[in-house]
Amino acid sequence: MRITILTISDRASRGAYEDLGGPAIDSWLRRTVTTPMEISRKIISDGFETVRDELIALCDRETVDMVLTTGGTGPSPRDLTPEAMRAVLAKEFPGFGELMRRASLEHVPTAILSRQTAGTRGKTFILNLPGAPSSIDVCLNAVFAAIPYCLQLIGAGHMETDPAILEAYWPGRLNSR
Amino acid sequence: MRITILTISDRASRGAYEDLGGPAIDSWLRRTVTTPMEISRKIISDGFETVRDELIALCDRETVDMVLTTGGTGPSPRDLTPEAMRAVLAKEFPGFGELMRRASLEHVPTAILSRQTAGTRGKTFILNLPGAPSSIDVCLNAVFAAIPYCLQLIGAGHMETDPAILEAYWPGRLNSR
Amino acid sequence: MRITILTISDRASRGAYEDLGGPAIDSWLRRTVTTPMEISRKIISDGFETVRDELIALCDRETVDMVLTTGGTGPSPRDLTPEAMRAVLAKEFPGFGELMRRASLEHVPTAILSRQTAGTRGKTFILNLPGAPSSIDVCLNAVFAAIPYCLQLIGAGHMETDPAILEAYWPGRLNSR
Repeated sequence: MRITILTISDRASRGAYEDLGGPAIDSWLRRTVTTPMEISRKIISDGFETVRDELIALCDRETVDMVLTTGGTGPSPRDLTPEAMRAVLAKEFPGFGELMRRASLEHVPTAILSRQTAGTRGKTFILNLPGAPSSIDVCLNAVFAAIPYCLQLIGAGHMETDPAILEAYWPGRLNSR
Repeated sequence: MRITILTISDRASRGAYEDLGGPAIDSWLRRTVTTPMEISRKIISDGFETVRDELIALCDRETVDMVLTTGGTGPSPRDLTPEAMRAVLAKEFPGFGELMRRASLEHVPTAILSRQTAGTRGKTFILNLPGAPSSIDVCLNAVFAAIPYCLQLIGAGHMETDPAILEAYWPGRLNSR
Repeated sequence: MRITILTISDRASRGAYEDLGGPAIDSWLRRTVTTPMEISRKIISDGFETVRDELIALCDRETVDMVLTTGGTGPSPRDLTPEAMRAVLAKEFPGFGELMRRASLEHVPTAILSRQTAGTRGKTFILNLPGAPSSIDVCLNAVFAAIPYCLQLIGAGHMETDPAILEAYWPGRLNSR
């Protein structure tokens, strides 16, 4: 299970700002996923071409199983992660963005400003997360139960989670729910 | 009221798998709709061009009032129903996909993997449903109340439902709700 | 704060029908927003090019801070506001359409037929609202708390609301919630 955490932020990429999103995702994964993982972290600047090229390299050349991005999904002029996603994804899953916004809305009304989405390119699953660590946990808790089965369907690696923390759902398997 | 139920499945189309989705939709319609209907059923294989060409023929040549599809909306490489929909639809209604996923989420967390949608081409309304019969009922119960009025607005045939089972909503008409 | 309320309706534009949507938006804004506003109102006919050209002029030439449209988002053949939006928007926020449909669904099952959305072009924020005055209030109440912060992020004017009526949310500012 090879995972890349991609922080997308002009300020973090030039060191003007400490990347809090990347470590928050890393810590959530290590708490939740029980399958051995190789997690790599990378920080890049905002911008359509930067993000697009990095995502394509991760999917097509490095063929990681999953990319989790943080940042660049808001309304600001330099927030161009969704535009890059549209250029990269073979299949988009609107249900992820819908559910993450709905879960975040219980905390902040500005959740509807997030244009985060998810989808696949080849055998890589890509999920956009917000920048704020507290919102990252809300989003991962909301959608992650569906991800191991999705990875299986697209031919990526096998992933198990600690059911005491988050029970992944496998249609056809006897789940405790 | 002419309706086509379109099962989209490689396995069902070559007889390796019994089509359960088509009959589930057929039985739901016969239980719920009181207007006389001519329902035809068809099974085709997955694949972008197969689905696109079949949908175009049903809308433009046979001009049926409604097409209900089952299958091909998930993350697997051969699930290409949404891609075909995008090539076929003149107008897409994102609210249908949103509500069907939300209703299905109450049963299975993997509902967010479904890329099902709905829309119109000419005077035909097309709705994507999942493959599993139990999920089909959940989705039809969630969205069907809006369909008769939609058919009227696009100039398709008139449809009434049995209000004891599902009350269609007509803005401007005295509804019992 | 310069705002344009754009009524999109064949019947209202030729005087065959009184525009109720425009005045409903105007009255909601005057009740809720405390920042001095210059509100202009315009009525145009339905149709892809009419709506597209008007929206582009408002964003690029008049550079208003916000455009609120009413009408043209349904399934009827002449409802083409969403198609015009797609041609005009630099960034779309799917969360607005999702939340407005969800809020409207508590009142009418036909809310899923609405294809309303929101987004930005340059420093202008554009929001589609339905045609019926009662639905307009439901939609504005559902999403407006996120709009002043969005205007700030895109470099539009500063807007404050009366917190007794609707409390705008500013991440990082001490909100009373």
